This record gives sequence, C-alpha cells and structure tokens, in this order.
Amino acid sequence: MSVKSKGLDHVAIAVKDLEKAISHYRDVLGLELAEIEEVPEQQVRTAIFGHGMGRVELICPTSADTGVARFLEKRGEGMHHICLEVEDIEATLAALKAKGAPLIDETPKPGAGGAKVAFIHPKGNHGVLVELRQGPKP
Amino acid sequence: MSVKSKGLDHVAIAVKDLEKAISHYRDVLGLELAEIEEVPEQQVRTAIFGHGMGRVELICPTSADTGVARFLEKRGEGMHHICLEVEDIEATLAALKAKGAPLIDETPKPGAGGAKVAFIHPKGNHGVLVELRQGPKP
Repeated sequence: MSVKSKGLDHVAIAVKDLEKAISHYRDVLGLELAEIEEVPEQQVRTAIFGHGMGRVELICPTSADTGVARFLEKRGEGMHHICLEVEDIEATLAALKAKGAPLIDETPKPGAGGAKVAFIHPKGNHGVLVELRQGPKP
Repeated sequence: MSVKSKGLDHVAIAVKDLEKAISHYRDVLGLELAEIEEVPEQQVRTAIFGHGMGRVELICPTSADTGVARFLEKRGEGMHHICLEVEDIEATLAALKAKGAPLIDETPKPGAGGAKVAFIHPKGNHGVLVELRQGPKP
C-alpha cells in the first residue's frame, strides 16, 4: 500500500527551561499559547502554540534518562522533530517497514493529547526525526 | 508595540539532493507535493508540500556560497528553520529590535512566493533559526 499523510501536525523544539521558552515564543515572537501538557509516557512537558495542523510544540524533559534530555546535552536547544498526521498509523508503519524505513517504534505508543504516535529514525528521512501521529487534535 | 504572529507558515529542511528528497517525502512519507520553486535571491531551490499554513519545505542550495550550503557542510541534512507568518513585517522587526532580538536582517528581503522575509539568529530563539514572512501564500 501507499502511505498517505494529511500533512504537518507540528514541529517540535527541544528546550531546557520550558517557562523561559514559553515566554519567548509567546511574548517576543507573538505565538498563541494553546496548552501546556505533561506526557508521563514520554517523560516530557510540552507547550503547544496554535490550533489544528501546523502547530509549534516546545518539549522539555522531566527526566535525564530520555531521548530529549540526551539531545539537549549533545546538541543544545533547537529543532527536534516534525510530526506528520496519518489516517491509519498501524497501516502506515507496516508500509514503511516493507519499504525498509528505519522505524524506532514498530508499534504505536501513547503521545500527547491522547494520540497514537511512532517515530522514524532521522537517518531514514534526510536527517529529520519524524513522528507519525494518529489521533484527536488538542 | 507587541508582536503578533499568525502562526507557523512552514518548517524548512535542508537537503543535498532535492529530487531524491522530494521522492522520499512524497512517495515514502506520503506528503502532497504542491510546488517546486527556484529562489534566485536566496540561491536555493525549494519544494513545498501542502497548502496554507504549516507546510513542509525542502531547501537545496544552488551555490556553495550560501548559508544553507554551509549548514549542510557543517551539520549535514536536517531541520534548518521555522517560518512564522506575521501581519506587518516592518513593524515586527522594529519591535523585535527594540527588545534586543539578534536580527540577521533588519529590513525584509524577497523570499519564495513573492513574500517579504527576514531571519532572526538561532541564539535569540532557543537554538532555532526563525524566518518571519509577510506575503501571499503559494
């Protein structure tokens, strides 16, 4: 089967101090803060700007033993991943696996806002960590 | 004055081979290719996926003497910048300058799709190169 994405759900930025970064993106750059959410499954706190597709998400680790914490230690703050909304995440993962995509998650896991999510390694996407997401919008 | 952004216009990914990357983002990840454009003012070729806000843009340098080419040489392919759509780019740049933001462009320059654009240095945005954009949608 062929994979069909609905488009960009969000772009995620890894930050060390969530409150300080929220203040910058809201008060200096003028984005509309929609929601702050703790995602225990991924040990991060997130701040979402905007609504619908194409949101901006700040992510801040709540534990040192996470991919986001290691990213910050190694590369500093900056763009972390893009997330694409798909119609059927299980079918998408099966199709990507058949094409040899380097899946980090072969089965979906719980993500922010009650969605199902799965990640594909940057080496398979021209250097971009890609999250696939299926679920309700926040 | 206070800066007001309409939200995320696009996220840009720097790539070395535009055709190969287009094939991946369209045929493997299933995004809808909307347009391929050459932007001589910035010495890049771009491929845009999706319509309206929250698009995904691939950018590929057409000259070695550009910021994108130097980024690719230093860091390899990957996420390059986010672009926020603003209502009045001149007023936004003036407000940011007054707040001490590290502007790369103090006055707007021509961007893709007939827009006016200006960049803010990553050191001022928690590690993220931010493009401001005012103009018609492609």
